Amino acid sequence: MKLSDIATLIGAAFDGADVEITSLNTLKDASNSELSFVANAKYIKDVASSNAAAIICSEDVAQQVPSGCVALVVDEPYWQMAVVSQKFAPAIEDDESCEVVVGEGSVVSPKAHLAPGAKVGKNSHIMAGAYIGSGAVVGDNSIIYPNVVVYRDCKIGNDCIIHAGTVVGADGFGFASNRLGEHKKIYHIGNAVIEDDVEIGSNVSIDRAVFGSTIIKKGARLDNLIQVAHNCEIGEGSVFAAQSGMAGSSIIGRNNVFGAQSGIAGHLSVAPFNTFAARCGVTKTIKESGKTFAGFPFMEHKLWLKIQAKLARLVK
Amino acid sequence: MKLSDIATLIGAAFDGADVEITSLNTLKDASNSELSFVANAKYIKDVASSNAAAIICSEDVAQQVPSGCVALVVDEPYWQMAVVSQKFAPAIEDDESCEVVVGEGSVVSPKAHLAPGAKVGKNSHIMAGAYIGSGAVVGDNSIIYPNVVVYRDCKIGNDCIIHAGTVVGADGFGFASNRLGEHKKIYHIGNAVIEDDVEIGSNVSIDRAVFGSTIIKKGARLDNLIQVAHNCEIGEGSVFAAQSGMAGSSIIGRNNVFGAQSGIAGHLSVAPFNTFAARCGVTKTIKESGKTFAGFPFMEHKLWLKIQAKLARLVK
Amino acid sequence: MKLSDIATLIGAAFDGADVEITSLNTLKDASNSELSFVANAKYIKDVASSNAAAIICSEDVAQQVPSGCVALVVDEPYWQMAVVSQKFAPAIEDDESCEVVVGEGSVVSPKAHLAPGAKVGKNSHIMAGAYIGSGAVVGDNSIIYPNVVVYRDCKIGNDCIIHAGTVVGADGFGFASNRLGEHKKIYHIGNAVIEDDVEIGSNVSIDRAVFGSTIIKKGARLDNLIQVAHNCEIGEGSVFAAQSGMAGSSIIGRNNVFGAQSGIAGHLSVAPFNTFAARCGVTKTIKESGKTFAGFPFMEHKLWLKIQAKLARLVK
Repeated sequence: MKLSDIATLIGAAFDGADVEITSLNTLKDASNSELSFVANAKYIKDVASSNAAAIICSEDVAQQVPSGCVALVVDEPYWQMAVVSQKFAPAIEDDESCEVVVGEGSVVSPKAHLAPGAKVGKNSHIMAGAYIGSGAVVGDNSIIYPNVVVYRDCKIGNDCIIHAGTVVGADGFGFASNRLGEHKKIYHIGNAVIEDDVEIGSNVSIDRAVFGSTIIKKGARLDNLIQVAHNCEIGEGSVFAAQSGMAGSSIIGRNNVFGAQSGIAGHLSVAPFNTFAARCGVTKTIKESGKTFAGFPFMEHKLWLKIQAKLARLVK
Repeated sequence: MKLSDIATLIGAAFDGADVEITSLNTLKDASNSELSFVANAKYIKDVASSNAAAIICSEDVAQQVPSGCVALVVDEPYWQMAVVSQKFAPAIEDDESCEVVVGEGSVVSPKAHLAPGAKVGKNSHIMAGAYIGSGAVVGDNSIIYPNVVVYRDCKIGNDCIIHAGTVVGADGFGFASNRLGEHKKIYHIGNAVIEDDVEIGSNVSIDRAVFGSTIIKKGARLDNLIQVAHNCEIGEGSVFAAQSGMAGSSIIGRNNVFGAQSGIAGHLSVAPFNTFAARCGVTKTIKESGKTFAGFPFMEHKLWLKIQAKLARLVK
Repeated sequence: MKLSDIATLIGAAFDGADVEITSLNTLKDASNSELSFVANAKYIKDVASSNAAAIICSEDVAQQVPSGCVALVVDEPYWQMAVVSQKFAPAIEDDESCEVVVGEGSVVSPKAHLAPGAKVGKNSHIMAGAYIGSGAVVGDNSIIYPNVVVYRDCKIGNDCIIHAGTVVGADGFGFASNRLGEHKKIYHIGNAVIEDDVEIGSNVSIDRAVFGSTIIKKGARLDNLIQVAHNCEIGEGSVFAAQSGMAGSSIIGRNNVFGAQSGIAGHLSVAPFNTFAARCGVTKTIKESGKTFAGFPFMEHKLWLKIQAKLARLVK
């Protein structure tokens, strides 16, 4: 899409040299053929060093845009980014000319659906009612149980087991909101990647990234009915019990254990080798390892036990 | 069904003029060809003004039934209502003579199932494994992702996106129980209605109403793995984060925001423009607007923070 | 599989008389053609009386193995049990020679999938996108809504209703872990059994047992988005509201009521006729009946109310 057309679409002034914009991306990751945006004060620091071809921003940020990069000045940058995101969203399915590839030894149920451009490796099972989207890949020796949905462009590694009803790569929960209380969808251009040797239970929801990838790393284990929001990362060998949930963009180090019905807020990180009791709600980044936490807001498990004991005594 | 046959079915005395009963309904909404019931003392006030043809009730309520309305006196009115509800439940699917209608420009996967009598508007996508029941309607420009299930007679508006694995219109959690601990299903005669411009995440459960409609209003946004019970109403532009849940018959005003893993008890209402933190559990009707709440039982967020600080100090 | 081959597989010394091992089982339930294991000190007491043909155990337990039973001594018995479990896992689906049986009056959608060896009783409905695995049985007069998945060898009774998107019999969340933080899957040889007159909501996850059965007894009612882990048992007429969850091997007596978003930890039992408020988290076995509990950790509801009142006063 031409930069000039994008400017027209969002009502921004533009009189520079026109270029073809290939995609949307973050300030940090955008290449010089990509468009970026600033919608949150905490990312203004990334403007000056961005390689983006253009940046959608408010007037006060415009002067920080580096030379060679175009500032598209608008009143509501996040809303306008949402408007533009729709233009870069891929088709729901590719057209029939895109070949489906199924490796030797794999068994694909005639009642499964491999969309045009889907690829399945060797010795895998794709069972009835499973859906593998365009550009999506399932590796070798993996089992995709009935009615699993893998959205387009997502990747399932080798030796994975995905139980029935799980959804990998639906759009994350992202939208811009205006003063009238209306919401404009952020189309999600990224994907979700499940690395090798991962087992995921039934009815789990793993959203695709806005840009880049939501990642479940090698050897992780997820139980049933778990929420993994856009742009999360679950470290190698980490374990999530049933009904636990992660808000967006949180990064979990290797070999953490999250108990049932636990949760973690968005944009946090957790160092490796911690344990979180059932119902624990993580509200801050954790830089220590080897600890056990509980409660909401979370605290060390021992402290939580003390507080519970104290509470019991209060009413005696 | 003849009123006399209903009386026989539930063991109630009946010697009035017989009439054809067309459906079951609440005391307030029943027309003079419909049957109603009183199973809860708080609805006795609605008996005298009901237009119902007949009311299933206990002996002590019978004298309040208005003239022209038949009192069907039984020992366990709720159980007997459940017995009768089965007789008014529609067929699981209509017969093949009911036409399927698909509007211009819509793409329906051959692996989707449109039951007899289902209707799809223009330029919509119904993807593989999706199920649209008899009498159900999907509007224009909507996307129904793989393996979504829309039960019979439910409605999805225009410009909606329903992500994979979501279920719209399953029977709500309703049953009568007797002294032996047995449960008798209340067949749900109502439906679920998703208005225009609504996006719903993956693996969400939205139940149909007992009578009338469960309603998700225009512009609402629901994340993944959310529970919306029978007869709930979610106001325009309201936002529910992942794993939140609503018990039956609660009414949420416009532009409320519910955090992840939050919940609201049944039969409550919430005024517009409030925010509920993650894990907040709403236990009372809220008549104020513009507030932020947290905790379970819920309270203003500031107060909740104070209590948490106090608790931390208790054990120092 | 020959015992000698199993010994080789897990690197255990073996020079006794070879026998054919037919399956894996618990110390208590293993027959003299089955293999068992000890991976947890609390089960050592069951070793001496086990009828198993052989037991995988650590060196210090070996001398307690009864005569006639072979001790397969390894460093990590649980990990090795996991290794062996894969050898006893049945095929994903039986081969096409296994007959599908559908009783008189049943309606099976051509878009449903009955795997080879599946059986459906009389007057049942199997709707589009539903999957009934090999050896799985659905009884009479039951409704299996669209996109329900019943894994192989599981049983659904008579007069059951299973709503859309529910998964019965996926593998439970079981694995052995080593010092490198790697996990080895425990293949689940057991099944899940839903007795007669059970209604289960949408998007529920009920896992199969490691050995034996996960059981939902007659007349139980489950709402939406509920987690039932491997080897749980839900008693007759018990009721679970939406988003509640059970960890593994917990046994719930008859006519308990669990509120929304409640939970129970693993390996506990609950006597009949108790009520658990929304969000209650049960952390110990309950031997009393007729009580109402709340809170996490759980306590009697009255006490919980007192504590909440006290907390409110603390910050006044």
